[in-house]
Amino acid sequence: MIPRDPKELVELARGGSRTALARLLTYVESNGPAHAATASLAYRVPAPYVVGLTGAPGAGKSTLTDRLISCALAHGSFAGQHDFSEIGVLCIDPSSPFSGGAILGDRIRMQGHATNEHVFIRSMATRGHLGGLSLAVPDALRVLGASRFTFALVETVGVGQMEVDIASAADTTIVVTNPGWGDSMQASKAGLLEVADIFVINKADRPGVRETRRDLEQMLDLGVHEWRPLIVETVANTGVGTDELWAAIVEHRTFIEDGRLDEHRRTRMKKELDKVLSALLRSKVADLAHGVSYDAQVDALLAGTTDPYRAAETLLAES
Amino acid sequence: MIPRDPKELVELARGGSRTALARLLTYVESNGPAHAATASLAYRVPAPYVVGLTGAPGAGKSTLTDRLISCALAHGSFAGQHDFSEIGVLCIDPSSPFSGGAILGDRIRMQGHATNEHVFIRSMATRGHLGGLSLAVPDALRVLGASRFTFALVETVGVGQMEVDIASAADTTIVVTNPGWGDSMQASKAGLLEVADIFVINKADRPGVRETRRDLEQMLDLGVHEWRPLIVETVANTGVGTDELWAAIVEHRTFIEDGRLDEHRRTRMKKELDKVLSALLRSKVADLAHGVSYDAQVDALLAGTTDPYRAAETLLAES
Repeated sequence: MIPRDPKELVELARGGSRTALARLLTYVESNGPAHAATASLAYRVPAPYVVGLTGAPGAGKSTLTDRLISCALAHGSFAGQHDFSEIGVLCIDPSSPFSGGAILGDRIRMQGHATNEHVFIRSMATRGHLGGLSLAVPDALRVLGASRFTFALVETVGVGQMEVDIASAADTTIVVTNPGWGDSMQASKAGLLEVADIFVINKADRPGVRETRRDLEQMLDLGVHEWRPLIVETVANTGVGTDELWAAIVEHRTFIEDGRLDEHRRTRMKKELDKVLSALLRSKVADLAHGVSYDAQVDALLAGTTDPYRAAETLLAES
Repeated sequence: MIPRDPKELVELARGGSRTALARLLTYVESNGPAHAATASLAYRVPAPYVVGLTGAPGAGKSTLTDRLISCALAHGSFAGQHDFSEIGVLCIDPSSPFSGGAILGDRIRMQGHATNEHVFIRSMATRGHLGGLSLAVPDALRVLGASRFTFALVETVGVGQMEVDIASAADTTIVVTNPGWGDSMQASKAGLLEVADIFVINKADRPGVRETRRDLEQMLDLGVHEWRPLIVETVANTGVGTDELWAAIVEHRTFIEDGRLDEHRRTRMKKELDKVLSALLRSKVADLAHGVSYDAQVDALLAGTTDPYRAAETLLAES
């Protein structure tokens, strides 16, 4: 029998129990006391080093993730300064209602690694977490950390604000593009440019690689970078370029761990705290809207005896 | 000399002073005591009947708005049951930093009506209003109401969440599309379907009208409607179909004023109150982030002695 107590579960997960780990991840996908207790334990342990991948559906993120798992397995134990030896993988699809190990189409391939004791792969979806996936993912990464995972890959499908938000909460953020990308994603470029540490032009055996690289370089030329994002060409299907991508990840990790990691993590922690604060306040608004005073204020508004600013101040003062 | 006191300004605006009205609108675009005082006065007067238009840039919203002003001028004074006689027009471009009468390209045409004493046209942009444009626009509509305007047109550029949010706060919401629209806006369809009372297929002299109408009808067939959105074909440039659009607006107004307007306005007022509550709470979060306790909580997070949920609760309890 697997226990329900988060503390016992963390101990089992540290000892290698995948069932215990899966239950902890289910806890952080939901709300309530089990979530609070799990978060309380998980945030006491350092986070794993996190690489995030984002990009449009079909760009090849899952195949690349699969390749990166192989790289981490090959180099992780003798990488010297960096530890990539225990690998947690979170596959995030904000549009999907599935979670808890539901593996979708492209991701089946990755499951070749699933039987490896050093690899743990899980799909995540929002179940009712206070702040949705953008809060559940950091919590899940902490749970992986508390379960001895030192390295995590987070793959998000899509290039919306939420996906970029999730992927950019990583230590190293990879934006996966394809040849010809310049045309189709004009609108999202600005946001992606800001978060990318590494651009991958995947499917680089197709025409248009040179133009896409030139477009990216030109956009990068417009900015001032402490770290100028690297551009790597890959063909994930055949493995071409994936060693170079791995080298780019190691290079970026070396760069930010050279005195920048503390600042980086402080910034990230602030963002996370702000998200939790906002989520708590949102739930307060929802609570207020169910109170008796709320209806009275709406009546007053309709009668023209108050305005929304005064009404809101009144409600907040009463809460 | 134009006074600065909102109360005097409202009196002048009711008497027909455009300068006074412009100053009041500037007040509700910003934060502070003048905004609060203006809102307090404006919400004591019934809101005008509001028609909102939204749609992608270039769909022809400004030309349609121009046509609708003409329709309101032609029918307004003898429409019998409805009053369309005093027309306020707000042009909203969330991406533009201009406001206060800055008239952009396409909108110059509309200025043909600007000298009419029954028409008032104004561009709006956010200046620092607590909740941005989505709060400033309802306030501005109330200011128009307090200045005797009985009918308002709100035109927003774009189909993002904010634009849809602004346009759908109207009594009648018009979504402006073009032939071939089905292909390009797949992603936004769901949101637009929910808010539209009337779909316009503008530029209906171009190919693809029948397919676009069929796509819209099919999507509408999937829903259950108390009011099934009307679909009107127009060529705003030549005026074709604009009388039919006007008739659709009158039909919808008659529909919702037949016992539904109170409920409709209560729902809208609740949404507005919730927005103000959220904005106030957001500014609280911002205040918290500048306090000493905040830094202490971030330190504790980095030291692994708390978690973001506990830290947020602590900060809120102290605030």
